[in-house]
Amino acid sequence: MKLINEETSGVFVIAVTPFDETGAIDWASLDRVTDFYFEAGADGLTLLGMMGEAPKMTQAEAIEITKRVIARAGDKPIVIGVSAPGLASIRELGQTVMELGAAGVMVAPPGSLKTDPQIHAYYGQVVEALGDDIPVVLQDFPLSTGVNISMDVLGRIIEDYPSIKMLKHEDWPGLAKISAIRDAEAKGRRRLSILCGNGGLFLSEEVERGADGAMTGFAYPEMMVAVTREMKAGNADRARDLMDVYLPLIRYETQPGLGLAVRKYVLAKRGAIASPALRKPGKSLDARSAAEVDILMDRIEKRLKEIG
Amino acid sequence: MKLINEETSGVFVIAVTPFDETGAIDWASLDRVTDFYFEAGADGLTLLGMMGEAPKMTQAEAIEITKRVIARAGDKPIVIGVSAPGLASIRELGQTVMELGAAGVMVAPPGSLKTDPQIHAYYGQVVEALGDDIPVVLQDFPLSTGVNISMDVLGRIIEDYPSIKMLKHEDWPGLAKISAIRDAEAKGRRRLSILCGNGGLFLSEEVERGADGAMTGFAYPEMMVAVTREMKAGNADRARDLMDVYLPLIRYETQPGLGLAVRKYVLAKRGAIASPALRKPGKSLDARSAAEVDILMDRIEKRLKEIG
Amino acid sequence: MKLINEETSGVFVIAVTPFDETGAIDWASLDRVTDFYFEAGADGLTLLGMMGEAPKMTQAEAIEITKRVIARAGDKPIVIGVSAPGLASIRELGQTVMELGAAGVMVAPPGSLKTDPQIHAYYGQVVEALGDDIPVVLQDFPLSTGVNISMDVLGRIIEDYPSIKMLKHEDWPGLAKISAIRDAEAKGRRRLSILCGNGGLFLSEEVERGADGAMTGFAYPEMMVAVTREMKAGNADRARDLMDVYLPLIRYETQPGLGLAVRKYVLAKRGAIASPALRKPGKSLDARSAAEVDILMDRIEKRLKEIG
Amino acid sequence: MKLINEETSGVFVIAVTPFDETGAIDWASLDRVTDFYFEAGADGLTLLGMMGEAPKMTQAEAIEITKRVIARAGDKPIVIGVSAPGLASIRELGQTVMELGAAGVMVAPPGSLKTDPQIHAYYGQVVEALGDDIPVVLQDFPLSTGVNISMDVLGRIIEDYPSIKMLKHEDWPGLAKISAIRDAEAKGRRRLSILCGNGGLFLSEEVERGADGAMTGFAYPEMMVAVTREMKAGNADRARDLMDVYLPLIRYETQPGLGLAVRKYVLAKRGAIASPALRKPGKSLDARSAAEVDILMDRIEKRLKEIG
Repeated sequence: MKLINEETSGVFVIAVTPFDETGAIDWASLDRVTDFYFEAGADGLTLLGMMGEAPKMTQAEAIEITKRVIARAGDKPIVIGVSAPGLASIRELGQTVMELGAAGVMVAPPGSLKTDPQIHAYYGQVVEALGDDIPVVLQDFPLSTGVNISMDVLGRIIEDYPSIKMLKHEDWPGLAKISAIRDAEAKGRRRLSILCGNGGLFLSEEVERGADGAMTGFAYPEMMVAVTREMKAGNADRARDLMDVYLPLIRYETQPGLGLAVRKYVLAKRGAIASPALRKPGKSLDARSAAEVDILMDRIEKRLKEIG
Repeated sequence: MKLINEETSGVFVIAVTPFDETGAIDWASLDRVTDFYFEAGADGLTLLGMMGEAPKMTQAEAIEITKRVIARAGDKPIVIGVSAPGLASIRELGQTVMELGAAGVMVAPPGSLKTDPQIHAYYGQVVEALGDDIPVVLQDFPLSTGVNISMDVLGRIIEDYPSIKMLKHEDWPGLAKISAIRDAEAKGRRRLSILCGNGGLFLSEEVERGADGAMTGFAYPEMMVAVTREMKAGNADRARDLMDVYLPLIRYETQPGLGLAVRKYVLAKRGAIASPALRKPGKSLDARSAAEVDILMDRIEKRLKEIG
Repeated sequence: MKLINEETSGVFVIAVTPFDETGAIDWASLDRVTDFYFEAGADGLTLLGMMGEAPKMTQAEAIEITKRVIARAGDKPIVIGVSAPGLASIRELGQTVMELGAAGVMVAPPGSLKTDPQIHAYYGQVVEALGDDIPVVLQDFPLSTGVNISMDVLGRIIEDYPSIKMLKHEDWPGLAKISAIRDAEAKGRRRLSILCGNGGLFLSEEVERGADGAMTGFAYPEMMVAVTREMKAGNADRARDLMDVYLPLIRYETQPGLGLAVRKYVLAKRGAIASPALRKPGKSLDARSAAEVDILMDRIEKRLKEIG
Repeated sequence: MKLINEETSGVFVIAVTPFDETGAIDWASLDRVTDFYFEAGADGLTLLGMMGEAPKMTQAEAIEITKRVIARAGDKPIVIGVSAPGLASIRELGQTVMELGAAGVMVAPPGSLKTDPQIHAYYGQVVEALGDDIPVVLQDFPLSTGVNISMDVLGRIIEDYPSIKMLKHEDWPGLAKISAIRDAEAKGRRRLSILCGNGGLFLSEEVERGADGAMTGFAYPEMMVAVTREMKAGNADRARDLMDVYLPLIRYETQPGLGLAVRKYVLAKRGAIASPALRKPGKSLDARSAAEVDILMDRIEKRLKEIG
């Protein structure tokens, strides 16, 4: 199994977990959406993140999903979210998924961390709990975690914990953070892979600032693949034209709380999953919002034809 | 002086306060940007909100700015932000600006409010402090204030405090809140004017849901004027086409913290103010970000020509 | 197995989980501290709360601890904390521990709840997930959870969800909340058992206001037993004299973060557990703090003799 | 006028602002409570802090109170709280009160500060705005401000901004912070005056750890004066005996939100102010709480006689 490392690039899609209307896991749809992501050009997947409804699953379900997707993905790398309230759970789940063939684990900081030294110490404890040889993705998503990681403390974490190989970047605003990391590397600090989140809202700027790609779950993953590729190929205008086509829906999908229902609605409409159902207490899209998304999807089709 | 009321509609621009490079108020630019907003079609202005750098001013400066803009605005309504840590200050500033000719005052909830009953009680105290005859705009901006106003408690506030005439709507996600308010009105509750914020990010959907227009400071106010007008005229596709042209910049400008520097940079480049300077501790746009905004502005010009 | 109900009273000690210096569970000490609590007069125990280091355990360990303590406790009721990020985990753990003989489960609100309607809805979902027949303790601890439950919404929760039998009361300030609950009951609302937390800091006032006892883990549980008994027997002065003896240590133990290390230090010194060790990332008491606690313990002994 | 400096020690009482039942400032009581504090042995006073109801006053009232108390205090040092949302207000108020004869100004960090570098930068801006020659008290009160200042960043602030002369210490838990500061000084860092808050709840331990005294508003300031003096004289047991007498009331008064009503109730009962009224939206003590405080005050009298 290939592991992620500090050079990993491309698009890792944050995968949804498909449920049926009763809340049971829809295993056939899990296979189908896995295929869908790779057919759209994804380089890897990330499971059991916030948008994968991980907290709503039992641990047995989480393991079963991990096994199924890894088997389906062939040699493609799968990152698994293992954030948990305690280190024992992180270690247990982390070691289990790595044995199952995961390419790395992702850990977000718990909301109880209040100061830079606490944040730094926490990642030291995580790395110690997991062992040095498990590649770690640091998820930096203050809007959701409530933990603000300054460039300062992030720099010290990068320097002190070499098994942290990747940043899932979704600070907002966050473009300056990408530039700061690349500037520090130009002065000699070790490299870090940076894949960006926030639904792709700033993807063209992010890649231009030095990001290696995207790790987010926008329901048209082909956009993220194409924008990343065009930016790297020097076709910035083409990349921006593509971004602009999808931006109205990206914007709609980044609404906190509502976003996952939008995402599943689009994926179901595109045939990637059978039902847009969320597990409770999540709710599917209401009729008014669905009508708004329908318009946005129609306009994407129309604009795609216009730009060729 | 015309006061705002529950039927007020259109676009109220959240005005910037122009400073020179030393941090002094640039009075000539204040006149110029006032004219600029009205020439772009604004129906009114809102001064001394968060994006007007109000907290960085002395009270004497705030009064002086209010006088100057009201004088310049002729018969156009000017709303003044009077949020303050205590009721005595709210009353003092509120009564002062109304005497100077303001059309209403805007009050955001203080971050210390923790529960629905506390939020309800607070607006009762505000209305009591101001007196019944000053029209109040309730600013609902949880991302910034940290106070989440449920539809439930908002409903009780509307019912109990008739001098609250307008909602500055910038909950996020917030489209359902607009629908809920209009649904309640259809069942008999008194009308509330709803002008939307968030930089215009959802303006077409907001007006479609029943909002009366926008109250935000996007640096191309003509977009907000046109989108509101086209939506109301039934030209939803045209409105969405216009939105799409500006969305890449709207998105860029809604970055918390960074947004005001973007806004002032664009306004300065458009000639509406002499300098993009923010008063300390605010910072002007760094070179990388400025280059990104330049690209976005160029693309707006290009796309505007394409859509005609 | 006896279940808790709306009349449950007395002292439920929040039990510590003893570890050895390597971080392994010390099963012999778990037996010993269980005996210690009941010998001190406890009416029941609560396991796997925040102060039981629950988040640091794997699920298998949590189950094993539950089994061991229930077996050791004979016919005494054991409440189990089952707070978790998702409903599936709450249901799974809740049903498991009830089958193992627990007397009820305790659920704190997740920090993501922002408004009164959200808090109300959450407890509806919890009750639905668990089923109507599992008695629930609602833990109201805003300082730790970040969720402020107004008297208003608490009242609606009591009215709507009859399987919520008990309030673990540790709002701060919180005396008025006890009075409000008892006042509402005097006017006809169903009874709720109220056991108070906060380390016993306000225990005499709480019982006087109508609380049924304590549910907290102060390292001298005999104080809580005696104060509750004396207050109910009408010997308020004696109860206050006793409180005053322990107050300097109670105050010291209620320091957030540090408190558990203090508690385990005292329990180890009293012979109730073999080691004061916390599982990582927790830390044992530093030397300066230990010296301060030594003085406080000596003074308790001295004052106890003085008051007879 | 004597200024505070890095050696300042003793007790600075956080003064209440007396109002009459209509909410008007009671100037006679302001004189009386000023005298009361100094007769109790206070070395100085602090005005316009959170517990002085500063945010409820207009700026004109704040200035008038400052003048009155400075005049009444003779040569005793008066510190003035000048925390404000913006630097312009801090500078304006700071320079004004220094011209009126204040001994220094106190600044708490605004809740918008999220990271260590932001906190460090903020105090740099404050010092720059005030000028180097105004002595600054840094108020470190995370429970109220929401800003957690790590020992790390506090160290850098001390090193970089020499006009910060004093720490108003009320982190909780906070004893380790005092030790860390004194340890750093033993290794060569410049001295900082440390006066402690939190209503005196940990005063004996704080002075033993190296604090220079108290800056808080407990309604029996003679306790703070005596405990500080006895600790410094090496009579630790006597100091702890005194602490224990008042601890039940200290504990009651440290209830957030409720505390100021308790404090004013006690001061009014002791004759230091005419009315316990708070300015709106504050509320006076309800009858049940007042009865509880009555008992606590009676018990203080009784215990004082017992310990002699």
